[in-house]
Parts: sequence; C-alpha cells; structure tokens
Amino acid sequence: MIIIGIDPGLATIGFGVIDYTGGRFRTLDYGVLTTPAHTPVPERLEKIFSDATALFAKYRPDAISMEELYFSKNITTGIPVAEARGVLLLAAQKTGVGVYEYNPAEVKQAIVGYGKAEKKQVMEMTRMLLRLNEMPRPDDAADALAVAVCHAHCSGSLNVFEMNRGAARRNIR
Amino acid sequence: MIIIGIDPGLATIGFGVIDYTGGRFRTLDYGVLTTPAHTPVPERLEKIFSDATALFAKYRPDAISMEELYFSKNITTGIPVAEARGVLLLAAQKTGVGVYEYNPAEVKQAIVGYGKAEKKQVMEMTRMLLRLNEMPRPDDAADALAVAVCHAHCSGSLNVFEMNRGAARRNIR
Repeated sequence: MIIIGIDPGLATIGFGVIDYTGGRFRTLDYGVLTTPAHTPVPERLEKIFSDATALFAKYRPDAISMEELYFSKNITTGIPVAEARGVLLLAAQKTGVGVYEYNPAEVKQAIVGYGKAEKKQVMEMTRMLLRLNEMPRPDDAADALAVAVCHAHCSGSLNVFEMNRGAARRNIR
Repeated sequence: MIIIGIDPGLATIGFGVIDYTGGRFRTLDYGVLTTPAHTPVPERLEKIFSDATALFAKYRPDAISMEELYFSKNITTGIPVAEARGVLLLAAQKTGVGVYEYNPAEVKQAIVGYGKAEKKQVMEMTRMLLRLNEMPRPDDAADALAVAVCHAHCSGSLNVFEMNRGAARRNIR
C-alpha cells in the first residue's frame, strides 16, 4: 500500500511517500513543495494545487494522510495556512483515493504509543520504522513521513472500530 | 465591468453578480452555493470548487471580490471555513481575472463610508445602490453583493494609490 503523508502549509508543504506492505515500511520519496513569499495568496494556492496534483499523479497512492491544523494562539496568521490546506485536501480528493486526517496527538499516539510524546521521540521512532540512517530534513518532510506512518499503523493494525471512528471524525465538521 | 462577490463558507457560500458600468449598478444574479452536512470535508471542498468554477464560467467576470475571514474567538470551528475559502480563491485564480480581498471594515467603509457601520446599514445601502426592492435573502447572498459593490467602488472611484494598496495587501501574507 502506497501512502503519501502531507504536512500542510502555505510557504512550505512537507510530503513523504512510503510503501507499507506485509508490515514492513519502504521510503520511496520525501521533500517539500514551496511557494514564493511576497506573491499574492491566490497565485500561491494555484501553485500548491498544481504541484500537489503532479505529486499524487506521479506516485498513484492508495491513501493520502494529512495532518490537521492546530492553532493555540494566533488565528489570523493561521488563516492562509488553513486556506492552503483546503487546496491540498481538494487535490487529494480529486485523486479518487481515501483522504485521512489525523491531529498531532493521534500521530504521536500511533507512532510512539503516547499522545503527548515529544516531537524528538516521534521523529526518532519514524526514522527507525523507515530504516533511515538520518532524520529527513527539513522538519516538514519528517512530519509528513510521520503522518504517513501514522496512517499505515491506523489502517493496518487497528481494528474496524478504529477505522470507523476515523471515518466518523471526517464527518463531524 | 462584471464583478462577482463571494461570501466564503463551508456549508453556505454567498455569491452576487453585478455589472458596474458608467457609475451605475445592475444586479445580474445572486444566491448561495451549498454543501451537505454530515459529509467528509474533502468531498464538500470538491463540490465547492466545481460549483464555483461553473459560476465563474457562466458570468465570465472581469473581477472577483472576496470577503476576508475574521475570527474573534473560536479558531477551531473556523479552520474548515478557511479551507473552503482557499478552494474558492483557487477557483477564482484559475479564471485568470483579478482576485481582490476585502476585510469586513473595508466593505463597510466602501459602502457606508464608515468602517464600523452596523450590518443593517451596509445591507440597506447595498439594496439602494443596486436598486432592489427588497434585501436579498439569505444574508450570505446579501453579504456577497456588498463585497461586489465594495470592489466596484474601490476600483472605480478610488485612486491609483488605493489600488496599489490593495495589490500590496494581497502580498502581505
């Protein structure tokens, strides 16, 4: 099963492409999509849609896993990031495969087994599971690989109840 | 000059189509695009993109004017609305015409001449300018007409300084 993980953003979008077959992971690709600063947001959204669509077409994933946004404080600066995430969800939806959303605590829980784990632990466990010598850079790419691994664990090892819970969550809004 | 105003949302998106020629307004169309509740957000975003693209293709506007989001409190419920707005901006950008963004105070200033005007005043002035017998329903459609009128005033009667300011604002993020 090929899974693409996405860490959403406006300036930098992390992506990680993994193959999860027979309980083993293989890392196919990772990196970032970027948009230029000092450019109108609508133009940046168009580039994100185009680049993400090309990425999804290249790897023909079986599932796309995307981290949910979490804003503790400044919503105003968060709005353009949420707008970019909407465009990424649209590009994902248009591939016709399942789109799954996980919040940061769910990613930590799925990878480290503890929803309040430190970021460093999540990164190190992701690196080990993917059998990489070093942690991918930048952080956005590493975060994207983590949310891809999160979906592999949730879809592969959790039971039908958990899958239904995931589907239900997508309906809540 | 044909202007389409958009009041963004996830469940209900207001639109208003006006013609502004020689300082006079003509109302061509208004209404709402809707998406079903209890449906995954990615599917709703796909419907919004499709419906908005069809609307823009039907009226071939010279400009698209969209209200900016403002969240005073609950950011979490605001995230899906911002995601939907991103998809609307993408659809607008893909038409190839100018996309203009105005915050609520700018809409009030452009229509009533006072940035802290009450909503009722904005609605009544919009109705008079558009020579409508009644205020359009629902509110989302009326808000969309207001942001279309706002752009007509800003592009037609304000000076180059103001236009540049608008262009610069779109670059700020």
